[in-house]
Amino acid sequence: MPKTRQQKQNSLYLSPVITIVIISILSPLSLASQPSKFRRAPRFVGKLSHLTEPPQRQQQQQYRYETRYFEQRLDHFSFADLPTFSQRYLINTDHWVGPNRLGPIFLYCGNEGDIEWFAVNSGFVWDIAPRFGAMLVFPEHRYYGESMPYGSTEVAYQNATTLSYLTAEQALADFAVFITNLKQNLSAEASPVVLFGGSYGGMLAAWMRLKYPHIAIGALASSAPILQFEDIVPPETFYNIVSSDFKRESASCFNTIKESWGELVSVGQKENGLLELTKTFHLCRELNSTEDLADWLESAYSYLAMVDYPYPSDFMMPLPGYPIREVCKKIDNAPDATSILERIFEGVSVYYNYTGDVDCFQLDDDPHGLDGWNWQACTEMVMPMSSSRDKSMFPAYDYNYSSFKEECWNDFNVIPRPRWITTEFGGHDIKSVLKLFGSNIIFSNGLLDPWSGGSVLQNLSETIVALVTEEGAHHLDLRPSTNEDPDWLKKQRETEIKLIEDWIDNYYRGKKATFNM
Amino acid sequence: MPKTRQQKQNSLYLSPVITIVIISILSPLSLASQPSKFRRAPRFVGKLSHLTEPPQRQQQQQYRYETRYFEQRLDHFSFADLPTFSQRYLINTDHWVGPNRLGPIFLYCGNEGDIEWFAVNSGFVWDIAPRFGAMLVFPEHRYYGESMPYGSTEVAYQNATTLSYLTAEQALADFAVFITNLKQNLSAEASPVVLFGGSYGGMLAAWMRLKYPHIAIGALASSAPILQFEDIVPPETFYNIVSSDFKRESASCFNTIKESWGELVSVGQKENGLLELTKTFHLCRELNSTEDLADWLESAYSYLAMVDYPYPSDFMMPLPGYPIREVCKKIDNAPDATSILERIFEGVSVYYNYTGDVDCFQLDDDPHGLDGWNWQACTEMVMPMSSSRDKSMFPAYDYNYSSFKEECWNDFNVIPRPRWITTEFGGHDIKSVLKLFGSNIIFSNGLLDPWSGGSVLQNLSETIVALVTEEGAHHLDLRPSTNEDPDWLKKQRETEIKLIEDWIDNYYRGKKATFNM
Repeated sequence: MPKTRQQKQNSLYLSPVITIVIISILSPLSLASQPSKFRRAPRFVGKLSHLTEPPQRQQQQQYRYETRYFEQRLDHFSFADLPTFSQRYLINTDHWVGPNRLGPIFLYCGNEGDIEWFAVNSGFVWDIAPRFGAMLVFPEHRYYGESMPYGSTEVAYQNATTLSYLTAEQALADFAVFITNLKQNLSAEASPVVLFGGSYGGMLAAWMRLKYPHIAIGALASSAPILQFEDIVPPETFYNIVSSDFKRESASCFNTIKESWGELVSVGQKENGLLELTKTFHLCRELNSTEDLADWLESAYSYLAMVDYPYPSDFMMPLPGYPIREVCKKIDNAPDATSILERIFEGVSVYYNYTGDVDCFQLDDDPHGLDGWNWQACTEMVMPMSSSRDKSMFPAYDYNYSSFKEECWNDFNVIPRPRWITTEFGGHDIKSVLKLFGSNIIFSNGLLDPWSGGSVLQNLSETIVALVTEEGAHHLDLRPSTNEDPDWLKKQRETEIKLIEDWIDNYYRGKKATFNM
Repeated sequence: MPKTRQQKQNSLYLSPVITIVIISILSPLSLASQPSKFRRAPRFVGKLSHLTEPPQRQQQQQYRYETRYFEQRLDHFSFADLPTFSQRYLINTDHWVGPNRLGPIFLYCGNEGDIEWFAVNSGFVWDIAPRFGAMLVFPEHRYYGESMPYGSTEVAYQNATTLSYLTAEQALADFAVFITNLKQNLSAEASPVVLFGGSYGGMLAAWMRLKYPHIAIGALASSAPILQFEDIVPPETFYNIVSSDFKRESASCFNTIKESWGELVSVGQKENGLLELTKTFHLCRELNSTEDLADWLESAYSYLAMVDYPYPSDFMMPLPGYPIREVCKKIDNAPDATSILERIFEGVSVYYNYTGDVDCFQLDDDPHGLDGWNWQACTEMVMPMSSSRDKSMFPAYDYNYSSFKEECWNDFNVIPRPRWITTEFGGHDIKSVLKLFGSNIIFSNGLLDPWSGGSVLQNLSETIVALVTEEGAHHLDLRPSTNEDPDWLKKQRETEIKLIEDWIDNYYRGKKATFNM
């Protein structure tokens, strides 16, 4: 059944999350009385083909692994008679010193996408495996990539019933059962397991160390916003950080972007305004609403903040080093006569068209696509997001749980459980809870990353530590080492290696085993 | 459909768990070639009316509480559209100093039975509540008492599908959701929660502290055999301890019991043998098989070992202090002409008929009753049990997982997951796992208790400690203080109180709050 306009207006916004609710001094229209729109938490890595498709052959060749499958229960926490499913995992044992020498096992906690993509984008674990004599395993997260219950994506994603086992707790139990079984098959029960993960995968790594200390001796949780729930951090945090990333490059860039939303609405409401915007932004198809365009722009800014890496990268898009700086240069340095929206177009072209190959731009034309992360955001991963009136360059927005809930019901026939994650995994008052509980977790964060605001930024105890880099962005430390790595990044990775060595040495001492490589 | 004889022979044995597979020098028959029988883990507290029925008015009056109900999800770990159910809890706030003074909340983790029965049998927490200014709450375990999914026991226990959410993980999540909600309703978010539990409830308390450190600051896990799984402790442990409890009272008592099994079979196989046994044991109805009688006897011995308390008690049955001593006196001191089986009858009469009111005995005539603990034993709580040839006074038996599995399938249409508990909660190598992880758990055990062999008997760290009493039995410390308490028991309870005070003081120091009663 096609959605009515009214439904559409109240509908979900996908990757870009902020909708046009603008109070702008430039805009002749006060939209303050417009009802607040619903928004989900921004995605960690965007709905790009990278996530759902295997990496290119070139990338695969760089890292060799075997692909295997493991049969998993659909519900670990009940005895309901459900079909099992096949979980994919990638494995590399080239450097493993084997079970007799208690060779470590490095387990990357697969997150919301094709595991091959995460594997080839986690160069750090590949880089350090030889030094540790470690095996690498990358179990895929259920309901992503090839690890699909019910035999196919179509059936798995059919409705709330088939999707209902897509939860973080089930994914953690998958990892626990998988690694226990793998170790037994290899007679490697005594080999220590170290967890790695970035972003949502980092949350899984941290939670897994806390919930399954008998399975893994420690976890490197990179850019893991485990505090981005309920009322633990202010809901403005994420967009404030994105905005300050732009402001630190240029106040005028920040201001231009802040002004652009009103301009966008203003132009869009003119006769033939949508057509004008279509032309200004070189869109392939005529724009349906200014919201779609705003989503596309907001998405670019948020991702730019995540991948504001100090050297050129190709994580989500091919980009220059410090890409926000380049975006702001384009916005600021355009000829004087350039309009606000033309400046914006020049700016985001750095993100969407750095290579210059794109003739026209396709906006995400399926913002209602029911993918896995949307389901997770509508069930457990309820991360309240607002946009402040002053500190944010985005349109002001106050988080509204009621409309969020309503939209989730419309989209998935499911009622979110916004307090469940903190009930199951904690988060409130984390410093006093973990001061005398748990050990061996590294929370690494770069402060340019908007997700850093929901992560752990100070040491919680002697062995649950925070590594914070001012110039780092979204799980930069997990990327492969390059010749362009700044010293602070090299130092961060050295500290991580040292800590992991300590965990393993400590474990071996406990086992009274000697570790001679 | 009535079971055939063959089926019956291979069937489950309920409360008493050991079947007659005897190699006895006294028995003329070698039964060694008889196929091994299946057995489940012994029950913690027997299938007595106490467990499924509310306590008597007299007991209730001793402890005043309000009965309330809380709506729970049936499956916390999926979003399947299942009916909710009403969880019962008992609450007493008489001594609570309230939220402003961060009054502690003592939560007893309900186990496999009616919560009122556990509440009135956990005098320790009632005794200490005033001293701590603590609130008491006793949430009931799902699928027991009044906390029945699907509205009724009949439906909840109908089949494997309706029973499938009867798991320990779901029960822990019930407690977590319940207490989070209760605290919020009372504006008592900052009040520290301390967990208590005995037996299976003790396992839940320990696991809850490990899995939900943000919910509770510590746990007193009394007689909690969290290591009675897989291959962690030898499967002979339980029956060896029962046997040594008898041996320490009297070697001849031990020997008489050990010999009695062969005698039982021998008599039973005679013409009119079952009738003779029926008379010897004063049974109300004619015996169908010697196995039924053996089950009844074994059950008595196992429970006697659990409740071998130093003073008279009425926990499962009215009993004298050190009841095993009394049983053995009867067995040993009968006139010379008394037969082995007559001695046995005199002995177990101490257990089954201490008051002398019973005219004839009803054996459990529904050993296939599908109750909650049987389901749990056939799914997660797979505790391998053997009976050794030399150290045990019970018939020799080697644990056989295949037949166990087969019987669970026959009874419940369910396949056990014998490795799940250790995957989810750990257990192997617990000392090195928890040496640097977790805090604030007391594992208390009395060494007379056969479950102590599967529990934690040494300190794992500075704050995860074992309190072991040589003369204690099954969660004796949780019982109310009495005038007959021996000094070692008083001392044990004082230590427990001191440790709990430390946890709370530490928590308050962290909160920079002052606790002035």
